[in-house]
Amino acid sequence: MDIYPSKLLEDAVKELSKLPGIGKRTALRLALHLLREDLQTSEALASALIRLRQEIRYCSNCHNISDTGMCPICSNPKRNRAILCVVEDSRDVLAIENTAQFNGMYHILGGIISPVDGIGPHDLNIDSLEHRVSEQHIEEVIFALPATIEGDTTNFYLFRRLQDYSVKFSMIARGVAVGDDLEYTDELTLGRSIINRTRYEGPLSK
Amino acid sequence: MDIYPSKLLEDAVKELSKLPGIGKRTALRLALHLLREDLQTSEALASALIRLRQEIRYCSNCHNISDTGMCPICSNPKRNRAILCVVEDSRDVLAIENTAQFNGMYHILGGIISPVDGIGPHDLNIDSLEHRVSEQHIEEVIFALPATIEGDTTNFYLFRRLQDYSVKFSMIARGVAVGDDLEYTDELTLGRSIINRTRYEGPLSK
Repeated sequence: MDIYPSKLLEDAVKELSKLPGIGKRTALRLALHLLREDLQTSEALASALIRLRQEIRYCSNCHNISDTGMCPICSNPKRNRAILCVVEDSRDVLAIENTAQFNGMYHILGGIISPVDGIGPHDLNIDSLEHRVSEQHIEEVIFALPATIEGDTTNFYLFRRLQDYSVKFSMIARGVAVGDDLEYTDELTLGRSIINRTRYEGPLSK
Repeated sequence: MDIYPSKLLEDAVKELSKLPGIGKRTALRLALHLLREDLQTSEALASALIRLRQEIRYCSNCHNISDTGMCPICSNPKRNRAILCVVEDSRDVLAIENTAQFNGMYHILGGIISPVDGIGPHDLNIDSLEHRVSEQHIEEVIFALPATIEGDTTNFYLFRRLQDYSVKFSMIARGVAVGDDLEYTDELTLGRSIINRTRYEGPLSK
């Protein structure tokens, strides 16, 4: 797919295919779709993307994406300010919020420690995390980072950095997904779910 | 995924997820990616999309996408002007050009006849096709439309419309894909490939 009949089309395909997971073929499909739609569709898309990048702010407390200096979660008086859930990025906040099972606060690291990618502790929002733990009467820090070597490294780094504060540490449970068959669960996950087994106290109410 | 921490992010996700094949989750991933990149990336993307939609022109001869009034294929003196390949859209032209097996001209219908979608002959570039067949000394019209009921309907409509002109009609071969096993080929395709079998004259030179 290389000989485009138009430089304009080629440019659009080039820019679209810079997006993650969008190959040349998909980019061409998207560009041709926009050509079939009216101008307003392309303008609305372009303007939303520019405004997002230009006007977005980050919460000064938790570093989550926000339209103002303080995000809706940090400014919500009903949230439990004593529990702090440490996540990698905004998507994790959305995912946890969608469960409706957590009423505490978040702290967005903005990545995880990954020497391979050249990401060290100083590239992440760790100083502000320590500041919050030392100043905001936090009782529990929950690590909700990816279950990877990098995630484990980051958990351990944060633990060492924060262990002198009187705070409880926990991490989200890893185990067999609800509804999954044991035989299709990978050994690592199944192994963890046995080690971290929880007490059974009769049927759970949904 | 519904409680976005930012209206700007929500807008960007909404616009991105209007694109075909892009769901809310993918749109969020793309938006967060653009936030991590510098402003120039978003601006280049937005401007390429707007320019594409605003400045694109269509070839006055074949209706392909073009930056000028005549596309590179129609203005190429080395192409065989006696053979006309009828396709649904620009992507088909790119696909056939990539084979490097065709040196004739194209005609882009801009769709196929589909009563279910409310697309009739008058919505397609059929008048200009007839005009070309009657004026441009075309010797052969190749139908390269999709092998669907709509494609077959369109083939037949075009055939009836053009059959009084002294022109030969053909359609691209349908059959078992090169390299495919017969046992994995669907019955319809395999059936067609038997009906439309071609004469074997010893090993083909690649």
